[in-house]
Amino acid sequence: MTHPDESLLLRTQDARGVVTLTLNRPQAFNSLSEAMLAALQTELDGLADDPSVRCVVLAAAGRAYCAGHDLKEMRAEPSLGYYRDLFTRCGKVMLAIQRLPVPVIARVHGVATAAGCQLVATCDLAVAVETARFAVSGVNLGLFCATPSVALSRNVGRKTAFEMLVTGEFLSASEALAKGLVNRVVPAQALDAEVERLVASIVAKPRAAVAMGKALFYRQLEMGVEAAYQTAVQTMACNMMDESALEGVQAFIDKRPPNW
Amino acid sequence: MTHPDESLLLRTQDARGVVTLTLNRPQAFNSLSEAMLAALQTELDGLADDPSVRCVVLAAAGRAYCAGHDLKEMRAEPSLGYYRDLFTRCGKVMLAIQRLPVPVIARVHGVATAAGCQLVATCDLAVAVETARFAVSGVNLGLFCATPSVALSRNVGRKTAFEMLVTGEFLSASEALAKGLVNRVVPAQALDAEVERLVASIVAKPRAAVAMGKALFYRQLEMGVEAAYQTAVQTMACNMMDESALEGVQAFIDKRPPNW
Amino acid sequence: MTHPDESLLLRTQDARGVVTLTLNRPQAFNSLSEAMLAALQTELDGLADDPSVRCVVLAAAGRAYCAGHDLKEMRAEPSLGYYRDLFTRCGKVMLAIQRLPVPVIARVHGVATAAGCQLVATCDLAVAVETARFAVSGVNLGLFCATPSVALSRNVGRKTAFEMLVTGEFLSASEALAKGLVNRVVPAQALDAEVERLVASIVAKPRAAVAMGKALFYRQLEMGVEAAYQTAVQTMACNMMDESALEGVQAFIDKRPPNW
Repeated sequence: MTHPDESLLLRTQDARGVVTLTLNRPQAFNSLSEAMLAALQTELDGLADDPSVRCVVLAAAGRAYCAGHDLKEMRAEPSLGYYRDLFTRCGKVMLAIQRLPVPVIARVHGVATAAGCQLVATCDLAVAVETARFAVSGVNLGLFCATPSVALSRNVGRKTAFEMLVTGEFLSASEALAKGLVNRVVPAQALDAEVERLVASIVAKPRAAVAMGKALFYRQLEMGVEAAYQTAVQTMACNMMDESALEGVQAFIDKRPPNW
Repeated sequence: MTHPDESLLLRTQDARGVVTLTLNRPQAFNSLSEAMLAALQTELDGLADDPSVRCVVLAAAGRAYCAGHDLKEMRAEPSLGYYRDLFTRCGKVMLAIQRLPVPVIARVHGVATAAGCQLVATCDLAVAVETARFAVSGVNLGLFCATPSVALSRNVGRKTAFEMLVTGEFLSASEALAKGLVNRVVPAQALDAEVERLVASIVAKPRAAVAMGKALFYRQLEMGVEAAYQTAVQTMACNMMDESALEGVQAFIDKRPPNW
Repeated sequence: MTHPDESLLLRTQDARGVVTLTLNRPQAFNSLSEAMLAALQTELDGLADDPSVRCVVLAAAGRAYCAGHDLKEMRAEPSLGYYRDLFTRCGKVMLAIQRLPVPVIARVHGVATAAGCQLVATCDLAVAVETARFAVSGVNLGLFCATPSVALSRNVGRKTAFEMLVTGEFLSASEALAKGLVNRVVPAQALDAEVERLVASIVAKPRAAVAMGKALFYRQLEMGVEAAYQTAVQTMACNMMDESALEGVQAFIDKRPPNW
């Protein structure tokens, strides 16, 4: 069913360094098979070390965005060790998205369930069409979405997260917006323009500031406020000594555009 | 005033294993007297060990939902040691709700204040009528709702929680919904149907998946994201090896209902 | 440009102990110059030790609320050590607000950016006019708002915080309300009345209860739920033994106003 070839995960890069990764198993609702997880990990590892990259868009082909794990594959040879290994690899992909030095935007054109919903929660930003829907529906099959809960509960409130996890029911796009799971909801024909608006804003900023900032953002969230300030002070002082910040601040004082 | 008999806390259980606990001191606005706290702790301890139980509904009799501690009792013999002991026992009841292996749904038909508001915040899910109101109003008497703040601040944002705690003012049901304190707000005549909708969804899932998931959900919330994933991976791998998950996933593949 | 005299930061105190601090560098959009940070720290240190103070309002003069750091000053003599020191001093002001034993209300009549937005996020409560706007816009100059992100991300959800930090775009007052950055949004002519409503509610409560409660509130937020309850139990037992709580509870039982 799964072909470990490059067509599983499409990759394009424009002149600005905007990389679009497109999950490309539409017949399987872009489920995260072992081959798909491996392809994602390989791409993310490469992107992490590529200074030409400025922003990543995580898109998907076909009707669905992503349906989570590949259940046929997952059911084939059950063993505790296999499942531990599989879910660990999936978690590594999620952490790689969070650790990437450039922002990752989920371009959500359809249904996102289980680890697919986790992908949306894990991306730094998310734009969804009005018809998108979100669920952590493993519990419907007797498999509580434990690893998706990690990302989901760091985006939405407890009552909402618990309800989604225990009922398996869908959140509409507008509910997802109100609860904080996505940044923007737009009609389907406006999806690319809205993603581009975020992309254009990001690539207009110095790469170093965004990279330092993204790393700091997730690190300080896990700290007490005093330690968080200590870490943030280090980041901001280093950032300020960067050529682009010195020039940016000087340009602001001089009332001229920065010469980046 | 308080009679430590069984009528203080009513208990019913249906054929599905849905237990309804009803606070039954309507004349005292169902306040959490020592006897009520003891009755709740006893019931929760029993429920924790009873595999026939699938879901708990926490309801209340009379006009109010719950007015918090019993102030007459609390004021009778003031001592630091007594208050430490009393609030510790109350906190244990709250932790017992969170640690119960089955979901607990607050059925909020009226006003919930102080430790009564804390009960709503502590339950995994909450359904309220449109006329319900919520406050942590101890500060009006000079007693800041310190222990309720623990649960409240884990449901709603800081600015909202601080305002409620320092002003003692009420949140309306619709505000409580928008802020994340409750899952659903409905007209009074729809309250039981809405609670039943959640109950029916929960009892349709395998008990083991829900129990593992609930425990994991609260545990991972207190961890950094990397440790949270490690714990969630263990939970999800164990859950997947459970008979009901193996059957549930196979049934999904076979496009048939699971044989649970 | 900056004159380290007392007019930099205005201070008034009414008969109830309500102190209003007014940032008073309107020509520089009330930016947090070194002198302004020093003046704020000095005032906050004094307020922390003054038992006559009951509540602080943090206001600002001119069109803007606060534009963050003073960029001209900041750009004058760049060095890593200087920036570390500067941002550390700014962080100390923010922590001093959080640690003040009385509530601090931001009276936001205009634009709040960068460390100015951080001030709003740091205050315990915030009331804003309909035309107020909020941004952490340092990234536009190549300087990611690292220290502001500490306060911002403890008020609003991750997706919103990350978008603000990486795009530098403004949140409107109504968005700030919906996301949890401010407590109330009102027309300009209603700003003082709305601030006064909160002030009056706070000064009607016993000072000791509010002081113990505020300290507990921020401390328990950084703990796991079990440790949080242990700490909250101590606070609440001590609070209950305070004369004003014993009187407040007794007055409630006697159905009379407390004799505070």
